Amino acid sequence: MNDCKIVGIETNDIRFPTSENLDGSDAMNPNPDYSAAYVILKTDHSDGLEGHGLTFTIGRGNELCVQAIKSLSYLLIGKNMSSFTQNFGKFWSMITGDSQLRWLGPEKGVIHLATGALVNAVWDLYAKMEKKPLWQLIYDMSPKTLVDCIDFTYITDAISKQEALEILEKKQEGKVNRKKYLFKNGYPAYTTSAGWLGYSDEKIRGLCREAKAEGFTHIKIKVGSNLQDDMRRSKVIREEIGNDIKLMMDANQKWDVEEAIENMRHLAQFQPWWIEEPTSPDDILGHAKIAEAVKPIHVATGEHCQNRVMFKQLMQANAMGICQIDSCRVAGVNEILAILLMAEKFGIPVCPHAGGVGLCEHVQHLSIIDYLCISGSMEDRIIEYVNHLHEHFVDPVVLKNGNYFPPSNPGYSIQIKKESLKYYDFNTGKAWKNKKSRVK
Amino acid sequence: MNDCKIVGIETNDIRFPTSENLDGSDAMNPNPDYSAAYVILKTDHSDGLEGHGLTFTIGRGNELCVQAIKSLSYLLIGKNMSSFTQNFGKFWSMITGDSQLRWLGPEKGVIHLATGALVNAVWDLYAKMEKKPLWQLIYDMSPKTLVDCIDFTYITDAISKQEALEILEKKQEGKVNRKKYLFKNGYPAYTTSAGWLGYSDEKIRGLCREAKAEGFTHIKIKVGSNLQDDMRRSKVIREEIGNDIKLMMDANQKWDVEEAIENMRHLAQFQPWWIEEPTSPDDILGHAKIAEAVKPIHVATGEHCQNRVMFKQLMQANAMGICQIDSCRVAGVNEILAILLMAEKFGIPVCPHAGGVGLCEHVQHLSIIDYLCISGSMEDRIIEYVNHLHEHFVDPVVLKNGNYFPPSNPGYSIQIKKESLKYYDFNTGKAWKNKKSRVK
Repeated sequence: MNDCKIVGIETNDIRFPTSENLDGSDAMNPNPDYSAAYVILKTDHSDGLEGHGLTFTIGRGNELCVQAIKSLSYLLIGKNMSSFTQNFGKFWSMITGDSQLRWLGPEKGVIHLATGALVNAVWDLYAKMEKKPLWQLIYDMSPKTLVDCIDFTYITDAISKQEALEILEKKQEGKVNRKKYLFKNGYPAYTTSAGWLGYSDEKIRGLCREAKAEGFTHIKIKVGSNLQDDMRRSKVIREEIGNDIKLMMDANQKWDVEEAIENMRHLAQFQPWWIEEPTSPDDILGHAKIAEAVKPIHVATGEHCQNRVMFKQLMQANAMGICQIDSCRVAGVNEILAILLMAEKFGIPVCPHAGGVGLCEHVQHLSIIDYLCISGSMEDRIIEYVNHLHEHFVDPVVLKNGNYFPPSNPGYSIQIKKESLKYYDFNTGKAWKNKKSRVK
Repeated sequence: MNDCKIVGIETNDIRFPTSENLDGSDAMNPNPDYSAAYVILKTDHSDGLEGHGLTFTIGRGNELCVQAIKSLSYLLIGKNMSSFTQNFGKFWSMITGDSQLRWLGPEKGVIHLATGALVNAVWDLYAKMEKKPLWQLIYDMSPKTLVDCIDFTYITDAISKQEALEILEKKQEGKVNRKKYLFKNGYPAYTTSAGWLGYSDEKIRGLCREAKAEGFTHIKIKVGSNLQDDMRRSKVIREEIGNDIKLMMDANQKWDVEEAIENMRHLAQFQPWWIEEPTSPDDILGHAKIAEAVKPIHVATGEHCQNRVMFKQLMQANAMGICQIDSCRVAGVNEILAILLMAEKFGIPVCPHAGGVGLCEHVQHLSIIDYLCISGSMEDRIIEYVNHLHEHFVDPVVLKNGNYFPPSNPGYSIQIKKESLKYYDFNTGKAWKNKKSRVK
């Protein structure tokens, strides 16, 4: 029998000192140290299989996610994987529904980030047990099995289980051809590497040329520091990329609602395809107001969207033109499936947030699942790509000519190399020797 | 000069084993151990003053809030109180705006609960330095000084600083008379002690009679376990209290949107004044739909509302008929002031959530501030009261004939007795000796 028991967990507080060279700086996050609260599920599996999971943070506070993973782990330890996977939706409501831990959210912030790491580790382990990459594990599920992975609590007013099932059944048609297309062409990516704040104009020009040469057809720029600077940098980038390449803008929550509308009036001349995170990620009604005002520019958000209940409302309110799922902010694959299905029902393209630590590795699976099983389309869909930190992963993303190619190793591609786990451990690793005073 | 430096912090993981007798059980929280992540700000003040603060949880996970308080504390230690109080709004945006810790929210969940404990400890210390109870410290502020305590980021589309100032200036009139009225009559309370799930009918009848004898004019019942049971218990309570006493119902987030509307169709016959937390606290649009459907019953929510941005939208969407602020869920007095001002602008009565550990002690100050300085009214306003755990506080609430009477000791009435801190410490206290195996 292909089963195993979870016998324990290991956690690591992994931090990369990225703030040293301003990689990843934006208007809200001037000096992040890209980090992962990392968990390994230890099992009694005869092949020695482990489930790996992580949640992404930007430095300080990573220790809180590590601690939260530990606090949640009693819900997993000593249990058999089959008891989870036989009714995956029930597993998910169990791990998000601990009556005391739930108070800390519910379903948001540290406790939900940690839940994401654990849920994704369970999926990683499950896929390894089935000897399939995650996307294929789900591709091979029947619509009924897939829909049973989802807890529909609080979203039944937007999508019923029956409606979800019908979407999945309808998309059975053409699955095989879409898979062939995917293996031939890959899934399109866009790059944020060119557009960070803190880079000089010359560096931006160089990176734009590089991105074009690499085959990218979409480029994203950070805005929100100050309007004059945003306009100057947009102009530089448009000069480099011309009008055939799509330009996106990311304000990283820097504006109030009226301010966002006013600033976009000035930035519209650079023809952005979307404006991302124009204001507080919690402001559904604010996003709706901005979306109405900035048409035909789309409003994109989701990277800080705390759970499926918020995604539901952003969709119901026409506040979200582009749905940017994040693989770690919500509680893992089960919740992501709910969001993908709602996006399909509301006709909203899903363009995942990536970058960080391992987010590209995660979300490629999710966009592939969306394409093969749920939306059935790549139109207006694209995956973020940032060329940071991939070298630390056992099974890093494969990018060719601006496209992601499907991972083939069993699991969820989350696994960080042993030597990197050791070197970048915030408590014991060499990367942080004599540097800790810098982090405050 | 009346100033001091914060030289360090002490934290305690305080838990009361309340699950032993089902005090506080409801449909979502069957067996809570009422807990406090407790912080003491140590100072170099010549009188040895300390600032005490806490955030409330219901057991497991309290350790995460304690750890988060520690993670945030570097933002306070070594700084002078005057540097905070001279521009209190800026202090608040500093403590909620740490660029790395912000990623864990933003402004929600564990990190925001911990911020609440620290911000309230700063206010407790400030009030002690000024030798006033917190409510009086704020009562004595000019409108300009009070409004400067607030960070208006993300709420300017609902209320501008100028509008807030005008509200406060208008309410200067009659302040002195309202204070006199308050000291004579107190502020009305309602009791939830009678209506918990898990109590027998006979116990409920006895508690209803007790509540009436104690002068309470409002009683709240827990619903959401199952409809037939909710109806049976509502009937028992209405039999005991008649029609003169107002009855409120609290579903503790148990229902989906359509389910809430359907269940309230059946429960309407018991004439509830409000239905509290009918669904996910994140579901603004869902609350709006329910509010429209259950009229004239009010929808009450706020106890799990994560921050001012969510309160803003609940008000903008007519989703909230009663605003239930929580003293610890949002980031302390500064954010509460923003919410009270928005509630006044939108004409929504504020009826704080209390109970737990020390929440009654906190919110009496907030309702008094609302009455004296902001709304100027007690109409349709009432403070929750639960008769648990007050004996552990140095300055417990004073309740007479169903009314809260204003606290007179300097500070925010948060301070827990030293012997209770020692006895109920989850790591070292006698209360938890030989009991820890029970908590999972």
